[in-house]
Amino acid sequence: MASSEPPTASQASLSSVDGVADDLAGTTLSKKQAKKLAKKEAKEERKQQTSASATAAQDDSAEADPFAANYGEVPIEEIQSKAVSGRVWTEIGALEGQLSGQSVLIRGVAQTIRPVSKKMAFLVLRQFTSTVQCVLSVDKESVSPQMVKFATVLNKESIVDVEGIISVPKDPITGTTQQVEVQIKKLYCVNRSVPNLPINIEDAARSEKDFEKAEQTGVQLVRVGQDTRLNYRVLDIRTPANQAIFRIQCHVEDVSSLAGFLQMRFLRSEGFVGIHSPKLIAGSSEGGAAVFKLDYKGQPACLAQSPQLYKQMAICGGFGRVFEVGSVFRAEDSYTHRHLCEFVGLDVEMEIKEHYFEVCDIVDRLFVAIFDDLNENCKTELDAINRQYPFEPLKYLRKTLKLTFEEGIQMLKEAGVEVDPLGDLNTETERKLGRLVREKYDTDFYILCRYPLAVRPFYTMPCYDNPAYSNSFDVFIRGEEIISGAQRIHLPELLTTRAEACGIDVKTISSYIDSFRYGAPPHGGFGVGLERVVMLFCALNNIRKTSLFPRDPQRLTP
Amino acid sequence: MASSEPPTASQASLSSVDGVADDLAGTTLSKKQAKKLAKKEAKEERKQQTSASATAAQDDSAEADPFAANYGEVPIEEIQSKAVSGRVWTEIGALEGQLSGQSVLIRGVAQTIRPVSKKMAFLVLRQFTSTVQCVLSVDKESVSPQMVKFATVLNKESIVDVEGIISVPKDPITGTTQQVEVQIKKLYCVNRSVPNLPINIEDAARSEKDFEKAEQTGVQLVRVGQDTRLNYRVLDIRTPANQAIFRIQCHVEDVSSLAGFLQMRFLRSEGFVGIHSPKLIAGSSEGGAAVFKLDYKGQPACLAQSPQLYKQMAICGGFGRVFEVGSVFRAEDSYTHRHLCEFVGLDVEMEIKEHYFEVCDIVDRLFVAIFDDLNENCKTELDAINRQYPFEPLKYLRKTLKLTFEEGIQMLKEAGVEVDPLGDLNTETERKLGRLVREKYDTDFYILCRYPLAVRPFYTMPCYDNPAYSNSFDVFIRGEEIISGAQRIHLPELLTTRAEACGIDVKTISSYIDSFRYGAPPHGGFGVGLERVVMLFCALNNIRKTSLFPRDPQRLTP
Repeated sequence: MASSEPPTASQASLSSVDGVADDLAGTTLSKKQAKKLAKKEAKEERKQQTSASATAAQDDSAEADPFAANYGEVPIEEIQSKAVSGRVWTEIGALEGQLSGQSVLIRGVAQTIRPVSKKMAFLVLRQFTSTVQCVLSVDKESVSPQMVKFATVLNKESIVDVEGIISVPKDPITGTTQQVEVQIKKLYCVNRSVPNLPINIEDAARSEKDFEKAEQTGVQLVRVGQDTRLNYRVLDIRTPANQAIFRIQCHVEDVSSLAGFLQMRFLRSEGFVGIHSPKLIAGSSEGGAAVFKLDYKGQPACLAQSPQLYKQMAICGGFGRVFEVGSVFRAEDSYTHRHLCEFVGLDVEMEIKEHYFEVCDIVDRLFVAIFDDLNENCKTELDAINRQYPFEPLKYLRKTLKLTFEEGIQMLKEAGVEVDPLGDLNTETERKLGRLVREKYDTDFYILCRYPLAVRPFYTMPCYDNPAYSNSFDVFIRGEEIISGAQRIHLPELLTTRAEACGIDVKTISSYIDSFRYGAPPHGGFGVGLERVVMLFCALNNIRKTSLFPRDPQRLTP
Repeated sequence: MASSEPPTASQASLSSVDGVADDLAGTTLSKKQAKKLAKKEAKEERKQQTSASATAAQDDSAEADPFAANYGEVPIEEIQSKAVSGRVWTEIGALEGQLSGQSVLIRGVAQTIRPVSKKMAFLVLRQFTSTVQCVLSVDKESVSPQMVKFATVLNKESIVDVEGIISVPKDPITGTTQQVEVQIKKLYCVNRSVPNLPINIEDAARSEKDFEKAEQTGVQLVRVGQDTRLNYRVLDIRTPANQAIFRIQCHVEDVSSLAGFLQMRFLRSEGFVGIHSPKLIAGSSEGGAAVFKLDYKGQPACLAQSPQLYKQMAICGGFGRVFEVGSVFRAEDSYTHRHLCEFVGLDVEMEIKEHYFEVCDIVDRLFVAIFDDLNENCKTELDAINRQYPFEPLKYLRKTLKLTFEEGIQMLKEAGVEVDPLGDLNTETERKLGRLVREKYDTDFYILCRYPLAVRPFYTMPCYDNPAYSNSFDVFIRGEEIISGAQRIHLPELLTTRAEACGIDVKTISSYIDSFRYGAPPHGGFGVGLERVVMLFCALNNIRKTSLFPRDPQRLTP
């Protein structure tokens, strides 16, 4: 193979093993790939040749083939809005035994193409998360040997239309989700993929167990590194586990259909109003963490590092209880398994009457509802993830455990870990505490409250009895922080004092501080990263797995 | 009043009348306000004095007052998470006749405070969209003249807790939403607002009819200009119309509970998966419109001007049907009633089998469902908007009208308006066509399809029969465009050719174009601006009314 050509799937995948497998792989491959992408002319040329030869093959035989009309490329006009034919396509997920003997029209992706002989071939078609086995076998009514040949020279991942008869095999089918077969009578290619995919879906879908098994039998399987996956994300997200991950994320966000007949959504049913706050803001956001800066029509601006200030302003505007699902931007240089430069924040802010435990109560009930719902309604998706990335189900209590920071410190101390009682916990200590809590309370999900004031943002309300502590909390899943929340300061004088003490230039947040001068209710709230919820619920090892097109300090594309 | 002090409500409001009232007002006031904000020390000082004197007044009389415990400022600890008292607050919206004779505890905003005598005062308390009349009258069990005095020196918009007995007056109450009165027994101030608000809620809530009536009787009412409203958005959004606007927006977004028992959400029930695409992207987005540029860790980046490329990539990734609700950024210098630099986009993308009318069909059913739902389930909110901004209900058909661009041109021609048959329509012509369509078809909502290719983005699929036209459509409400949609090009070669023809640097979108090489299904989609849907459904005159904290070329704050 000429060096100017793109690597085949196995080449690309093997090179990625040189880096850190399935983790924060190095950039070796990325450079190669960049080169490759720049040289796609060669690829295209070859593709056109392949395509042309396939068509030629078909044309050659077509002359002598009485069933030539039963297969071939779909003319572009037919998928270019020429006419509404009225034909009815059946979804692959809907192919079940009760359709036995009936003719169906399906459109799917040719996931695998397996020639058996010149007279027979098997195809597995995929649509979304469903797959079905199709059999193409020469007969006297519709299928010719030329048609079988046409099928076997299709490139994997091409889009095809199949007309066929449903049948139910005697033995259960293990390789597909649907327990029926389709006897192909017509087969058309809607869109042909390139012959050599940068990654193979089967490779990308393998579990560690598959690798272990293969190793025992001396077979070397291709391993697709995390970086390669992200470079070819469009292929990577076609795996069952990835299809499931983003369906689960969507489900969590649909915060959250309480299990049950009425399908009431949790936040809505609690009287929360969904809002959208601006992401382009003046000044330097909340200070502290690094922000992305830009020029806004001649004014210095930055991207909001959270909707914090604006959701509080919405509370001052009389909305009572608000939530927002939206993009959050962090210019931090954190290159870890759990940080992104852009993620989806679920933010909640609410009036409280007297205690920030009113906020903790919403966290408790919301997340127990989310977890219950996932376990009850996303079994298929959780199974798909489990097959590739096995994990223990999350342990959580009906009433979420609440510990104080001081109690946490004490537990650590008793376990021999000394921690600064007025400092923050680091990731390692948090994990350790998570293990201790699991041992003692049998839960992977708990709230740690009353954090030292010094480690919380300036707008956090100090404790009434000890200003070294604050009315704040973090929430942990499997020992990792996913939620931060607190009562906020609603008194403009105290807010100004605290902002100044934290080194914030109060002039840049004057409209925020002024919002509390016109009658401001006591309030609190919290923020969650959507990607982290899914990552930790499923015990995935990298947040890039739960971000559709992740952004980190080194990745801005695709 | 010293010049260093902030203007009172009437001053601020009157100055804004100098600009364009209730419209795109000039910047005269903004400068004044900037000055004012910088000088808030003076304000704070005065506030503290006022607060101190109020407390003093109370203290003076408290000594001689046997009912001193029944009123006063709530000590900060009590709203600083000291304890969970177990007291139960009733929502103002829940105060109804059946509670007559019962004692309730409510927290609300002191919207109006009207002293009648030294022994009696009326308060109207507001919570979210509900208001209730409260009566404070000296008696022998709990209310002293000092308590009445305490009430009358409260500043409007302060947050108060009231304990009182519910009664039902003989005559209906016209000024509040709740048809009961609260006989106040205890009254505590939770948070005191400044004595002189920059805008009064009553002023901000007036309709044109109120102004007309007042003018007839020779009364001059204060008019709050759009710019002043946005400067003090936290106060402005407390009006009933604004509370309703953002509740309706949330309802539309909750796309969209189909009216009916099961509360199935429309897009979800149609098999769409909600996704989140990155807003930080490499290169120059889709080209064309101006983008906000920024530095991303040393790489040139910009803010996505739509999720277009990424939602198509999600389709190539096998999700079948996706939608996204998220921020969209446009650096255009459009300073009109209908453009924002940042808005909320509802984007949909879906596989199609053969015709882009499959996309139009989703638009049709989705929006008819949304409109039905708003009319059925948001009556209270629509009434609140109607009281301040009267509008005719939207006319729409059960099956949405679809006209071709050529038919539209012909209708305009017959009405004496000559339009370039291969050019775009301008705002004025669109409005004219909207009127013609309304006359002929009795609808304010219709789809115009088959636009000239030259006026559509590069990724738009040309028509099969005439490459001067495209498989695209716009959708109009009341003669204004709210939706753009089309079939997309799923063939990488054609996509490259079209991008080059449109002057796009294809290198910057190579990962997008490559996505179509791995088996790409025919697909189409559309995008909607959430703010425009609400603006046009309610026939509001300015998109700033439906954006919580709007961003335009001149506004980056609050």
